[in-house]
Amino acid sequence: MRTIDPGKHAARRDAILAAARSCFARKGFHQTSTAAICAQAGMSPGNLFHYFPTKQAIIAAIVDQEGGETAAYFAGVQASDDAYGTLLDFMDLVLALAADADFAGLTLEIAAEAMRDTDIAARVARNDAVLRAGVQALLESAAARGQVDAALDPAQTAGWIAALIDGIFNRVAVDPHYAPPAQRASLHLLLARFLRPALA
Amino acid sequence: MRTIDPGKHAARRDAILAAARSCFARKGFHQTSTAAICAQAGMSPGNLFHYFPTKQAIIAAIVDQEGGETAAYFAGVQASDDAYGTLLDFMDLVLALAADADFAGLTLEIAAEAMRDTDIAARVARNDAVLRAGVQALLESAAARGQVDAALDPAQTAGWIAALIDGIFNRVAVDPHYAPPAQRASLHLLLARFLRPALA
Repeated sequence: MRTIDPGKHAARRDAILAAARSCFARKGFHQTSTAAICAQAGMSPGNLFHYFPTKQAIIAAIVDQEGGETAAYFAGVQASDDAYGTLLDFMDLVLALAADADFAGLTLEIAAEAMRDTDIAARVARNDAVLRAGVQALLESAAARGQVDAALDPAQTAGWIAALIDGIFNRVAVDPHYAPPAQRASLHLLLARFLRPALA
Repeated sequence: MRTIDPGKHAARRDAILAAARSCFARKGFHQTSTAAICAQAGMSPGNLFHYFPTKQAIIAAIVDQEGGETAAYFAGVQASDDAYGTLLDFMDLVLALAADADFAGLTLEIAAEAMRDTDIAARVARNDAVLRAGVQALLESAAARGQVDAALDPAQTAGWIAALIDGIFNRVAVDPHYAPPAQRASLHLLLARFLRPALA
């Protein structure tokens, strides 16, 4: 019986996901074959099957990987003393990710797939709930410190910030002149006007 | 030689586009065959070919149709005396369209396709420019009447409103509890805080 090295297995799995992300971002889920993913990852179809039984399983793993990264990000920043500054930092990270055409393309592809596949939709919904909870916690912490208007409903406000984040990724697809990093100042202005306590 | 009745031709073309929209919204572009569109439209593949040579031509026509509707909408509202109220009406229409799962699904599908197909991307960019120009004209008219803070850059602000619109359609895909019409009050609040002149 062959023994499995868990570290090696995880590394190989990550390499497959990285290869698949690159293929999916360029051609979309349904125009990418598992053969193309194998070629990109430099492995045989038989070997790929040890890690992921289907292409759908690879898509699901990519969505879950993004969810894990979002959860880790928010777990790492919730203790901040400057919750509003932390929120702005997060939005700057979103702009940086949107400037990566592969990342933006994959994000749109996942949203479109969620409309058609209930398993992907459930995983995407879980990730989205994690993101909104993380933003909501920052908003509540900022409101407690007087950095954000306490009259704003934190859950609904977090929903609008999530919509803005989605919208930033969409802009990359629909407006060829959209340069995410150049949006930073106007995004901070929008957030300040929307979130800051009204001047007395 | 057969003569073509232009009215009949246009009606048949519209019926094909409606059938294709419904197929694409449910299964996506690449998982929909032209045979499925023919079945939905109740016509033969040979007949479909008289109207659209390829599936890609149908997708392009759907995108152009949406662009035409956007242009007609803004052409009809620019003379309004209450530009801010007109903008809110438009955002209410967006919420109504987002509540239509087929419309929302097709919107996401088109954005994802624009990342992969340069012809679709050019058509989507044209539509997006029409939408942003329409919103910008409303913002400028509202600013001239003191309804919107004249210090806000109208083009950049229109870009953020376009991002919000994109985000609303995305929310439908990623949050199963998102009910667009229930967002109306908080959307109006966000827009008021973002856009209204600061109180002196």
